[in-house]
Amino acid sequence: MKFRSILAATMLLTASATPLMAQGDPAEDALNYRLGVFRTMAWSFGPMVAMVKNKMPYDAALFSQHAERVAFLSHLPLEGFIADSRIGDTTAKPEVWTERAEFEIQMDTMISAAEKLFEVSKAGDLDAIRPQFGALGKSCKSCHDDFRTE
Amino acid sequence: MKFRSILAATMLLTASATPLMAQGDPAEDALNYRLGVFRTMAWSFGPMVAMVKNKMPYDAALFSQHAERVAFLSHLPLEGFIADSRIGDTTAKPEVWTERAEFEIQMDTMISAAEKLFEVSKAGDLDAIRPQFGALGKSCKSCHDDFRTE
Repeated sequence: MKFRSILAATMLLTASATPLMAQGDPAEDALNYRLGVFRTMAWSFGPMVAMVKNKMPYDAALFSQHAERVAFLSHLPLEGFIADSRIGDTTAKPEVWTERAEFEIQMDTMISAAEKLFEVSKAGDLDAIRPQFGALGKSCKSCHDDFRTE
Repeated sequence: MKFRSILAATMLLTASATPLMAQGDPAEDALNYRLGVFRTMAWSFGPMVAMVKNKMPYDAALFSQHAERVAFLSHLPLEGFIADSRIGDTTAKPEVWTERAEFEIQMDTMISAAEKLFEVSKAGDLDAIRPQFGALGKSCKSCHDDFRTE
């Protein structure tokens, strides 16, 4: 009874959440997922870039909160680049799949840079943050250059 | 010199990452962000729903990893519902803004349920997980019913 009602609730959830739940097509789900992760990261880059560029007053707690989010999210995109998911309006180059080892190295570089930025950000020193933010930005750009179309 | 080169790198990053960075329109950025968060969450719901429904073998570590992601992500969407961002293909009802207190209560209910699910998931007992997963699903459905169009 209890189990049945939970199952029912879960099925309701699945039905109710259709536009945001898995659509049954693994490639589409994977594309939506990885775009979702990158868009969530982009939101955090906004205030971080603004603070690094002195276009917004430095707020140590806010910077660190966004650095934490980016560090957490950096671990997520790789699993969205599943086989046969170069579909739709993806900007992923074929090399994501044909040069997989290099792609994964670059993803690891991003993860390390993002984790380190979060660590550095905790001390609240923008001058110490800048080079590490630059290192993270470099890892983004390098991977975009090699594995993403314009 | 060092600062200049970091600035340059940051600007390169901004230019290079244009499709994923802030576009300058706050409402569009906010919409992309909150959709991004929900799509990232949806990816984690896939395997969790499958395990709860016995459609996939229960893997305690995998379940807990996804529960952790959902708990982390549950804190994120609210700040994307900024003023005047009921635009584009959003499914957000006007009530998100006109009944803000209630909307925030429902967001808090989701956060609490997601955090609790992550805590419960650590023990690796699917029978203990099911009711808490049901509670989280109920919080999703309740908010979708009240604040989201089909």
